[in-house]
Amino acid sequence: MLKAEGTTTGKLVVFNGSDKPLELKEYKLQSLRSGEILVKNRYTTLCGSDIHTFCGMRKEVCPTVLGHEIVGEIVQVAEGHSGKDKNGEILKPGDLITWSIFSSNPSSALAQQGIPQKSDRLFKYGHALITEQDPFHGGLSEYCLVGPDTGVLKIPDGLPLPIAATLNCAAATVAGALRIAGEIKGKNIVVSGLGMLGIYCAAMCRNAGANWIGATDVSEKRLQDGLRFGVDDVNKINSDEDSFRSLEQLKERFGKKDVDLFFDMSGAPEAMEMGLDILGIGGIAIWIGAVFNGRKLQIDAEKVVRNLHTIRGLHNYNFDDFKYALHFLKENWEKYPFNTVVEKEFDLVHAQQAFEYAVNHKSLRVGVRI
Amino acid sequence: MLKAEGTTTGKLVVFNGSDKPLELKEYKLQSLRSGEILVKNRYTTLCGSDIHTFCGMRKEVCPTVLGHEIVGEIVQVAEGHSGKDKNGEILKPGDLITWSIFSSNPSSALAQQGIPQKSDRLFKYGHALITEQDPFHGGLSEYCLVGPDTGVLKIPDGLPLPIAATLNCAAATVAGALRIAGEIKGKNIVVSGLGMLGIYCAAMCRNAGANWIGATDVSEKRLQDGLRFGVDDVNKINSDEDSFRSLEQLKERFGKKDVDLFFDMSGAPEAMEMGLDILGIGGIAIWIGAVFNGRKLQIDAEKVVRNLHTIRGLHNYNFDDFKYALHFLKENWEKYPFNTVVEKEFDLVHAQQAFEYAVNHKSLRVGVRI
Repeated sequence: MLKAEGTTTGKLVVFNGSDKPLELKEYKLQSLRSGEILVKNRYTTLCGSDIHTFCGMRKEVCPTVLGHEIVGEIVQVAEGHSGKDKNGEILKPGDLITWSIFSSNPSSALAQQGIPQKSDRLFKYGHALITEQDPFHGGLSEYCLVGPDTGVLKIPDGLPLPIAATLNCAAATVAGALRIAGEIKGKNIVVSGLGMLGIYCAAMCRNAGANWIGATDVSEKRLQDGLRFGVDDVNKINSDEDSFRSLEQLKERFGKKDVDLFFDMSGAPEAMEMGLDILGIGGIAIWIGAVFNGRKLQIDAEKVVRNLHTIRGLHNYNFDDFKYALHFLKENWEKYPFNTVVEKEFDLVHAQQAFEYAVNHKSLRVGVRI
Repeated sequence: MLKAEGTTTGKLVVFNGSDKPLELKEYKLQSLRSGEILVKNRYTTLCGSDIHTFCGMRKEVCPTVLGHEIVGEIVQVAEGHSGKDKNGEILKPGDLITWSIFSSNPSSALAQQGIPQKSDRLFKYGHALITEQDPFHGGLSEYCLVGPDTGVLKIPDGLPLPIAATLNCAAATVAGALRIAGEIKGKNIVVSGLGMLGIYCAAMCRNAGANWIGATDVSEKRLQDGLRFGVDDVNKINSDEDSFRSLEQLKERFGKKDVDLFFDMSGAPEAMEMGLDILGIGGIAIWIGAVFNGRKLQIDAEKVVRNLHTIRGLHNYNFDDFKYALHFLKENWEKYPFNTVVEKEFDLVHAQQAFEYAVNHKSLRVGVRI
């Protein structure tokens, strides 16, 4: 099937555990199964969860191929595929696409309820075991086999690869956060954590008509990033022994704003607790950052009741969120400095260095050009 | 103005603090101000929060007149009132009515957002300071002056007074809980706490098409009550040293049900924590019971995120909830044994005994006929 390309093998970067170096290996490409799309990966950005796995803060099956924020070029669409993306656009070889981080059974009850990311037959790109027969399902690889029941989206003309790569995880997850937050227009919003999720959150909320956006982070650099992506006011949290005082200062400053919405992208228990303290009556806290093990939060239920607060958790996203993210980036990628989010670029052979750079520099994103 | 009735004074029961006996006093009725309605109270039920105040578990301004679950007869509608109830029904002397537990500024931002119970100029019946000029604003009284910007509803013909009295607090609050829970039809539901709120919750959920309703309480009697109000299965929680084991047993039994909705009416931290443990993916926890001071909850934020859980607190209700509650009772009061919820009745002179009975017997409701 790949005679047109003149190749029958592909290289990929194997992750064998956080205590072992990454390993570049070559695997044989198998014939496509019904409904699959063979993609030549073009660009992968390292997501926070990739970094967590690399550092051992998060357990993943091994050996695996990391990287799930991927954009690539269609090599072949197998029979059994509808031949269209989630927007109804025709898919053909040469098209640039990205695809949902997961595939799952579209007929299952959860998928029908708008939660396909937790449905049965769940498969997650960049998170699965490599076998000789089935190694191509991650971003740090020359190829990826995109399975049936994966949400595929064509990349709009002109959208740069490093930005397009962040679409199917950071951007889509934040789109989901905005969906479950409800009305954004006219709201006063606080974003905790200005990594890639926080940056997208600020820009999407600004774009959706937020009245005021405050943000908090432990990094002065990230706070400055935030101001370029739609944040109106920032407040630094100290991560050391001074953190309590800086949290109190933040409550004092932001709590006066009648905060309608609080987005936690940090996963820090202190931040989520603070978020409930600064929310006004009827306020909504959206938690998406807490995807790693942390201490339990201390929540005053009486305050949640008397203040009519809502807390909503979200992990990953659904296909509507994914489409919203694409539309947002298509319309807005030049309005904000998204072309600066990839702070350093490596090639596939230097994936080890890419991870090390990301860990040392806490970059918004490090890119791997393939 | 009250010459028609031939009276210018009214008796009421003064609460001077939890360490003092209730006191029957007589006050002069003042002339009506614009938009007010003078009501001759007919029946008041003692709400859980009245009992909490009576016992000192809850602080209230003193002296006050307790009782806010009230039904009464219109004596006079002052000029400046629209002359209609929230359903557009004409109000005239002799009509039986109930009214919202609060009045507030209908033009304020929160009222406009559907949260009138937290709006400015908030006044709460059965919770305010008695003065010589303004003593008639509670249920344990011969009269009540219903102020402008209070939601008034005419009582449907035939609805017994003891049931009608529970409309404006327990029933309406639960109606609000169902509103914020969203779709009920086909859902698997667990109700924690089978006092008056839990009983209404079970009946309203059953009536709205719930698939399965489980319930938990520390009282065997209340669990048996629950089964008569639409509950399918019950699990007793032990309040003593055995509580941990019984909670684990409950999780084991109810957690297999793919629980969509969890309603906490108990205010018990253990129950709210357990609720999150048994909720399925995308499940919603509604907290309305936690209106008294308790220990902080220990919440695993990662679970809330990965399971896409929602937690929503609600205190009191809005006018739509109030109307829903009236409609529900009008249609369903005979389908469930609501005529048994008032377990003992007293007259106003014996309000002290009424409270003592309620405390000692943990009755669903104790009634005061006036």
